[in-house]
Amino acid sequence: MMRMRHLLESQQLDPDLLFHLFSQAELFRRNPNLRPLNGKIMATLFYEPSTRTRLSFESAMLRLGGEVISTENAKEFSSAIKGESLEDTARIIAAYADCIVMRHYEDGAAKKAASVSRVPIINAGDGKGQHPTQALLDLYTIYRELGRIEKMKIAMVGDLSSGRTVHSLSYLLGKFKDIEIIFVSPKNLRMKEEIKEYLSRHKVNFREEEDLNKILSEVDIVYMTRIQKERISAQDYEDAKGKYVINLNNLNLLKSSSRILHPLPHVEEIDLPLEVEQSDKRVAYFRQAENGLYIRMALLCYLLECDNFSHASTLNFVANLS
Amino acid sequence: MMRMRHLLESQQLDPDLLFHLFSQAELFRRNPNLRPLNGKIMATLFYEPSTRTRLSFESAMLRLGGEVISTENAKEFSSAIKGESLEDTARIIAAYADCIVMRHYEDGAAKKAASVSRVPIINAGDGKGQHPTQALLDLYTIYRELGRIEKMKIAMVGDLSSGRTVHSLSYLLGKFKDIEIIFVSPKNLRMKEEIKEYLSRHKVNFREEEDLNKILSEVDIVYMTRIQKERISAQDYEDAKGKYVINLNNLNLLKSSSRILHPLPHVEEIDLPLEVEQSDKRVAYFRQAENGLYIRMALLCYLLECDNFSHASTLNFVANLS
Amino acid sequence: MMRMRHLLESQQLDPDLLFHLFSQAELFRRNPNLRPLNGKIMATLFYEPSTRTRLSFESAMLRLGGEVISTENAKEFSSAIKGESLEDTARIIAAYADCIVMRHYEDGAAKKAASVSRVPIINAGDGKGQHPTQALLDLYTIYRELGRIEKMKIAMVGDLSSGRTVHSLSYLLGKFKDIEIIFVSPKNLRMKEEIKEYLSRHKVNFREEEDLNKILSEVDIVYMTRIQKERISAQDYEDAKGKYVINLNNLNLLKSSSRILHPLPHVEEIDLPLEVEQSDKRVAYFRQAENGLYIRMALLCYLLECDNFSHASTLNFVANLS
Repeated sequence: MMRMRHLLESQQLDPDLLFHLFSQAELFRRNPNLRPLNGKIMATLFYEPSTRTRLSFESAMLRLGGEVISTENAKEFSSAIKGESLEDTARIIAAYADCIVMRHYEDGAAKKAASVSRVPIINAGDGKGQHPTQALLDLYTIYRELGRIEKMKIAMVGDLSSGRTVHSLSYLLGKFKDIEIIFVSPKNLRMKEEIKEYLSRHKVNFREEEDLNKILSEVDIVYMTRIQKERISAQDYEDAKGKYVINLNNLNLLKSSSRILHPLPHVEEIDLPLEVEQSDKRVAYFRQAENGLYIRMALLCYLLECDNFSHASTLNFVANLS
Repeated sequence: MMRMRHLLESQQLDPDLLFHLFSQAELFRRNPNLRPLNGKIMATLFYEPSTRTRLSFESAMLRLGGEVISTENAKEFSSAIKGESLEDTARIIAAYADCIVMRHYEDGAAKKAASVSRVPIINAGDGKGQHPTQALLDLYTIYRELGRIEKMKIAMVGDLSSGRTVHSLSYLLGKFKDIEIIFVSPKNLRMKEEIKEYLSRHKVNFREEEDLNKILSEVDIVYMTRIQKERISAQDYEDAKGKYVINLNNLNLLKSSSRILHPLPHVEEIDLPLEVEQSDKRVAYFRQAENGLYIRMALLCYLLECDNFSHASTLNFVANLS
Repeated sequence: MMRMRHLLESQQLDPDLLFHLFSQAELFRRNPNLRPLNGKIMATLFYEPSTRTRLSFESAMLRLGGEVISTENAKEFSSAIKGESLEDTARIIAAYADCIVMRHYEDGAAKKAASVSRVPIINAGDGKGQHPTQALLDLYTIYRELGRIEKMKIAMVGDLSSGRTVHSLSYLLGKFKDIEIIFVSPKNLRMKEEIKEYLSRHKVNFREEEDLNKILSEVDIVYMTRIQKERISAQDYEDAKGKYVINLNNLNLLKSSSRILHPLPHVEEIDLPLEVEQSDKRVAYFRQAENGLYIRMALLCYLLECDNFSHASTLNFVANLS
């Protein structure tokens, strides 16, 4: 396959590449002293803050032996306020760094930057657009937790109309066979039509539900999301808020082999005591966050073309969580 | 002794551990090329800004061969504004870093984070609570400057009711013998009762005074502090402001073996010409700031369990300042 | 010659030192794996934001094997708001770092810091004062692009009264022979008298013009600048704005050996299609930005006294741009 130069949207990720990245991620997890990116520099160019995503990428780069230059609020500080085009900024930062991780408040910003950059661009979220490394770590977590992706039934829960993560993940799942998705949301916050059409074209089974408890017992993965107050009407927020919660009352509707994922931060939609979060293996979202580190290490190595490890030993890894 | 996992408050520091850290600090001062923390990552998680403290920790980590991921205003940027609990944030950052240095605006925040973190937490100041590494560097400075801690008379000067540094230092001094403390403050800004009770229980002699000049000639250390306008009433500020100043008029009341300490930044409470600050050895506060670097190196190594150096040569160091 | 300790203004840079730095810059360009600053720490102390300048310095330091501690908005965050003097801040940061790169909103700030700092200070812009590393990279670019500095005719275009870069560059050009400068600006925004007097004293030929197109065909370098709306009157801005533009209409007035420079960011004063910017070799401003990286590497090595490379092979480099 042709080498991907930039990661701009989750559709770019095919199963072959995904499994290559998963096995690289395992390699780094088990060999914390590899330093393939020694002497390389990553720039984080964040036009809106996202401390967690930024720190995850920076930790990934440093653990690989690389270095980081960083700006937390490019919007306010950069030449942007003097009127410079995004393309010019990207071109200049590309002279200082070997790859650029970019978060922007506008759809398509990463694509613009990639059109002129001589170094790889990683889209770390652009407006209501995509956040492909989140989808990547979500899928990696599903694979690690279940030992498979195909033959899987997943519920996506919450505000499905404006949630960036469920969009990117749906695109990715369209690449696999025997997937069944249950979209659980209030009527007003249903999954976007274009994504449902995409899934139909790709022969992914899906249906829509409003009642979370009704479907918990049948899914392998329940992917919870935060209701994003800042993006929807007050009425929609009230309708959705208390309705979709995992707590002690419905937790045991889930099979013992099922897993709860969440892109985090979570607020009231997960209402479990600390002890349960720490001991119940169905709670997978903290492992999911950690997986982000390893899969980003794998992605950075791939894009910087430093992934020519012998990885025979990691090809058939299986999650070992019991 | 049991190994301390997190540094949350100065009471945790016993004399044995203190002298271990002092000797490690000397080791690093004399051997600038040791890199015991190669491959380790420190996260700074600052919910309120403190450029100096942050840079001091970051420099310490880098000089030990480690790396840093950093956020200067976690309060505004992090998932905090979306409603995430501090514990969740700590748990996730702990997946990205090998230790976390945390500054927070609320008492007890570091303790909360430590309750869930699998990596060491260092409290770099929590609200009106504690700032144990400041006390640590203060005590290290006293030891370096005087050659001893016991049999020492110290004046703490300024707003003693709300000053975090004088509280943490008082707790530490309670662990040593033959200490005499003179608390110098306006009536309204006296040392807190609970600390005076603690000192009584620990058999530390102390008394309270209002007149700085009256006691300068009898102390070994005068620990000046800034009157924190932002924390007290306008009247209290006016009362305290001009009253407690070291200047050319009273400097020579101090013995030549005495030392002036200050946690810095200082404003009008130290009013000495540059030449005096540079040449008079009683002015110790810039050395004190530098000591912060070495003692934080020692602390980081200890908490990351990389302090198993042979340090026979550093056990009996003596400050050499003449 | 005596070693320069701090770089505060462009007048400090003599031809001997300039050519030494140029040849070092070439050395680093061609040998990306040299790590002469291993174990050194650079602090960036920015009292006003300048993402590009900061990232350029940080990338330079990291590429040399050094490390960086950084503050993006020292003004708001540092002890400055508690009333600490700039000198005290510099003295303390000097305990944490091996050199300090400083950007400040006040003229002469870097000089103040240098008066007390025991480590080198680099002025990265102080108010309406200077920005000597910009002049340094400008001159390095001229040398690389033309193969010479002497016998050169340069136009400086835009608001010459308040533009910091054209001031610093003019001072530098005063050190070379057979330079001819054409200052192109509206009547109200002419070059400052003190700089014209300096140039006269140094026997640099200059004249003033208002019409850009009239002089394009005779210059080797056209140095465009942004009209800084924030610094001049609305009327002056309107007068200057549309008047000084390089676009497809006048580009070909330039000789094929001529070059367009710009300190960037540029806005409407350069109005060329992307394809022209990418293929026309007269467009030199992106190369100029990249040169900033290499010349800053050279400067850091020089000030940290780590520039004792054998560089015989780089002494007679010639730009190779075909």
